[in-house]
Amino acid sequence: QVTPTHFCSDFACPTLLGWACYSSNKLKSACSRPPLTAAALKKSTQNEKVWAFAKYKYDALGKRFRITEQGVYANKSFTIDVLLLYRKGVMYEIDRKNRTCKKSPLKTDFHPLAIPKDANLLGQAILGSSSGWGQGLLVNTWMGDLPEGGKYISTVTQFGCIPISTAVQTSQFGWILTSFFDNVIGITDPNCLNPPSFCPDEFEAGAEPRDFLSLFQTAH
Amino acid sequence: QVTPTHFCSDFACPTLLGWACYSSNKLKSACSRPPLTAAALKKSTQNEKVWAFAKYKYDALGKRFRITEQGVYANKSFTIDVLLLYRKGVMYEIDRKNRTCKKSPLKTDFHPLAIPKDANLLGQAILGSSSGWGQGLLVNTWMGDLPEGGKYISTVTQFGCIPISTAVQTSQFGWILTSFFDNVIGITDPNCLNPPSFCPDEFEAGAEPRDFLSLFQTAH
Repeated sequence: QVTPTHFCSDFACPTLLGWACYSSNKLKSACSRPPLTAAALKKSTQNEKVWAFAKYKYDALGKRFRITEQGVYANKSFTIDVLLLYRKGVMYEIDRKNRTCKKSPLKTDFHPLAIPKDANLLGQAILGSSSGWGQGLLVNTWMGDLPEGGKYISTVTQFGCIPISTAVQTSQFGWILTSFFDNVIGITDPNCLNPPSFCPDEFEAGAEPRDFLSLFQTAH
Repeated sequence: QVTPTHFCSDFACPTLLGWACYSSNKLKSACSRPPLTAAALKKSTQNEKVWAFAKYKYDALGKRFRITEQGVYANKSFTIDVLLLYRKGVMYEIDRKNRTCKKSPLKTDFHPLAIPKDANLLGQAILGSSSGWGQGLLVNTWMGDLPEGGKYISTVTQFGCIPISTAVQTSQFGWILTSFFDNVIGITDPNCLNPPSFCPDEFEAGAEPRDFLSLFQTAH
């Protein structure tokens, strides 16, 4: 007589959605990623309007952020290369090919890349397998509410708070999925976090204060 | 004079879609996951019709597969608990709560879970970071065409060929995303791969040959 045990049919944490093992356990505090990192990411939206691949360098100490992004927005390809200097309140849009550069005031404050303190821990999992060396990675998944409405789900490594993926709910694009990879702690080339020599010292005449998102929406 | 180097603006492998560093490098052969594994997965579809959480046990040697799945299909929750014995050509649908069980002929052949030989290697990446111990995982991403049309993208670990995620293009649901986690090599409870005692010896009268997919589509 075969008597399947617990696991065969039961889930450790059944919920309405099944997969979301929600826990209100807030004992574990949220985490911040290392202050100096470089990484790559790929991004796609549920409505297929946007596909993008990006590389970024992030300096939480100097409040600097450089991102180069290639992708497709509404069937048109785009390229973005921007440097955000939050301490100075400046954004540079850089075209290295044509050696042109535009300097604008930056309207947003610096937000360190971190899991917000009010996020809820959904659960812990092993990506891959814990059965062999080099086969698995321990990660935590957090969920929370966005200030502007909608939810986010963010997965980071247990050790180091390195980002693995985020899903962000938007009205414009549906869920935006971002997968991070090739994270490196430290900045291999600090030059990338300074404006290139061909960038102007002065703001462009009549330049509106901008942020990264407004850039993205006009870049296509 | 600041001279940003290569990385600041260039991508190692620019392509039409930017993020897909396609390579026709077929020197690396495709891989098969370990023959005995247990794992969990979560699944969602682009059109939000399906959300599901599942656990499965997989025995490639005995050609046996047990999957328990909870989820939401078109706003209705469903539970599936099936045992597929490919060697015998039998499928059991199990309701442990009510101790009922239905035995049907199985119409499909056993397909070992593997990356097909004709898949193309998109590239290799580190999930997380290679900067610290326990912070990263080396993975390979493969892409290929489905026999019935559409594409699949599958990411597995470099060591062990452990599944991380798959994206499968379907006409009915859009892209189906599946994330795998908590993989364990070996079967902790082999009982789960045998039919429970309350299952019948005979096929149900008039039972049609079925497969796992047909089950899924009638289960809601």
